[in-house]
Amino acid sequence: MSAQLVHTIAGVREAVARLRGAGKTIGLVPTMGALHAGHGRLIETARAECGAVAVSVFVNPIQFDRADDYERYPRTLATDASFAEARGADLVFAPEIAEMYPRSQRTYVDVEALTQHLCGQFRPGHFRGVATVVAKLLDIVQPDRAYFGQKDAQQLAVIRRMVADLNLPVEIVGVPTVREADGLALSSRNQHLSAEERAVAPSLYQSLQATEAAIASGERNPERAKQAALAVLAAEPRIRVEYFEIVDPDELQPVTEIAGPVLIAAAAWLGATRLIDNLAVEVPE
Amino acid sequence: MSAQLVHTIAGVREAVARLRGAGKTIGLVPTMGALHAGHGRLIETARAECGAVAVSVFVNPIQFDRADDYERYPRTLATDASFAEARGADLVFAPEIAEMYPRSQRTYVDVEALTQHLCGQFRPGHFRGVATVVAKLLDIVQPDRAYFGQKDAQQLAVIRRMVADLNLPVEIVGVPTVREADGLALSSRNQHLSAEERAVAPSLYQSLQATEAAIASGERNPERAKQAALAVLAAEPRIRVEYFEIVDPDELQPVTEIAGPVLIAAAAWLGATRLIDNLAVEVPE
Repeated sequence: MSAQLVHTIAGVREAVARLRGAGKTIGLVPTMGALHAGHGRLIETARAECGAVAVSVFVNPIQFDRADDYERYPRTLATDASFAEARGADLVFAPEIAEMYPRSQRTYVDVEALTQHLCGQFRPGHFRGVATVVAKLLDIVQPDRAYFGQKDAQQLAVIRRMVADLNLPVEIVGVPTVREADGLALSSRNQHLSAEERAVAPSLYQSLQATEAAIASGERNPERAKQAALAVLAAEPRIRVEYFEIVDPDELQPVTEIAGPVLIAAAAWLGATRLIDNLAVEVPE
Repeated sequence: MSAQLVHTIAGVREAVARLRGAGKTIGLVPTMGALHAGHGRLIETARAECGAVAVSVFVNPIQFDRADDYERYPRTLATDASFAEARGADLVFAPEIAEMYPRSQRTYVDVEALTQHLCGQFRPGHFRGVATVVAKLLDIVQPDRAYFGQKDAQQLAVIRRMVADLNLPVEIVGVPTVREADGLALSSRNQHLSAEERAVAPSLYQSLQATEAAIASGERNPERAKQAALAVLAAEPRIRVEYFEIVDPDELQPVTEIAGPVLIAAAAWLGATRLIDNLAVEVPE
């Protein structure tokens, strides 16, 4: 099979209408390109659950809080299209910026409370840009299901809440994080790491696991549960922690006591590269 | 024929799916009830253009900036349902508040710039509430076309912009204002006017016409074009003008010179009742 590459909104709507006309359900995998095995897992999951799979590739300018991050975000469309096709995509939607934002964008989707902590605190406007572009992509493609990685846990929670609050007719599917053998979560930004940075990068995941272990051992105080993790990270001079929080999984508010399921989420800088990771932890109540 | 009255989101989606299955296009007329001939015109227009017509009746709490306005907003569902049916509605969707807002609403649709002036300046949060509930209704019903009165010109512009900016797959149709014989625009709030207030209420429309006449006579300075109108209104001690502006019809920004099409828009208080009206004016360039 061969995936169809379309660049216009009219083109993707026509292609989706044709697939629907053939009785197929539609899965959408929204991406910013630079596809790796994490995206591969999303596409394969969609492939297994839907009659047809569309992958969007769009580096969305309005979700970047730093110009340098936007500038150096990898753009590899030809490779991405082959990658998506190899994993079973029927359609690759790769619009230009002017196709997605043909006039001054005046309309934004804001998800409150959930965007207050974690990355939201350090990347002003980021989730507003994410929610807005995802709303647009969902309205353009009108899929039955859309697939997002659990690696971006706050993004996933924000999108789930947006879909519920706005009654968008789509099912959001969260797909488990894919990791390297040493535990580092796959990310398009990993390619910016130097060899030395790459060597210490798995500490981020190890710090989450240390916290998970503390909770599993019965620790219910979030500050104490974080202590072991912060010690792991403090031992690495190349790592600068941006945040390390234990929050409730729905509204993403820091908890004062670990009394139910929580999300342990962290962001750290390694040189000029910012990495994020998280672990969802069930606590027997 | 007999219109179906549904109260749940699942119910309206099922009813719409059945109508679509029968090959019908769907027109939606979103209302807050207390239906009058202005709504009648919306329903009849939808009836003429669509295979099936749904009318929603929902007094949306999140668009009211004043609790007293929300409390005393007329609620007349039984009459509204008969009224809609008599004008050809197939479906009346009248959800309870808990159906539309089953949890803390965290997601809001913000339309910037267009909500800065006119009513937006005096009703904080109003258009955020309107845009959010209209996005929800459009996502719930998924109509081919949705009908709004030109009487609420700022609301119409905001919704058009939201639909364009978010790529919502719906056509927004603006329907001309219906007026009483003396020019007063129909509004559910007119019923709150005392006999004395009702007698002077048409001054609002007359003031818009005076400005229109000034522009037709060649006046291109907005401040001078407004003078005749403001004189009309100042002569009525029962009327307190909230705003009287000449703005561009797309972004609703006050113009410094009348060089193209403009919208003349005004809001005024008569006792405890706030009325709005507007006129779109073409200017030969």
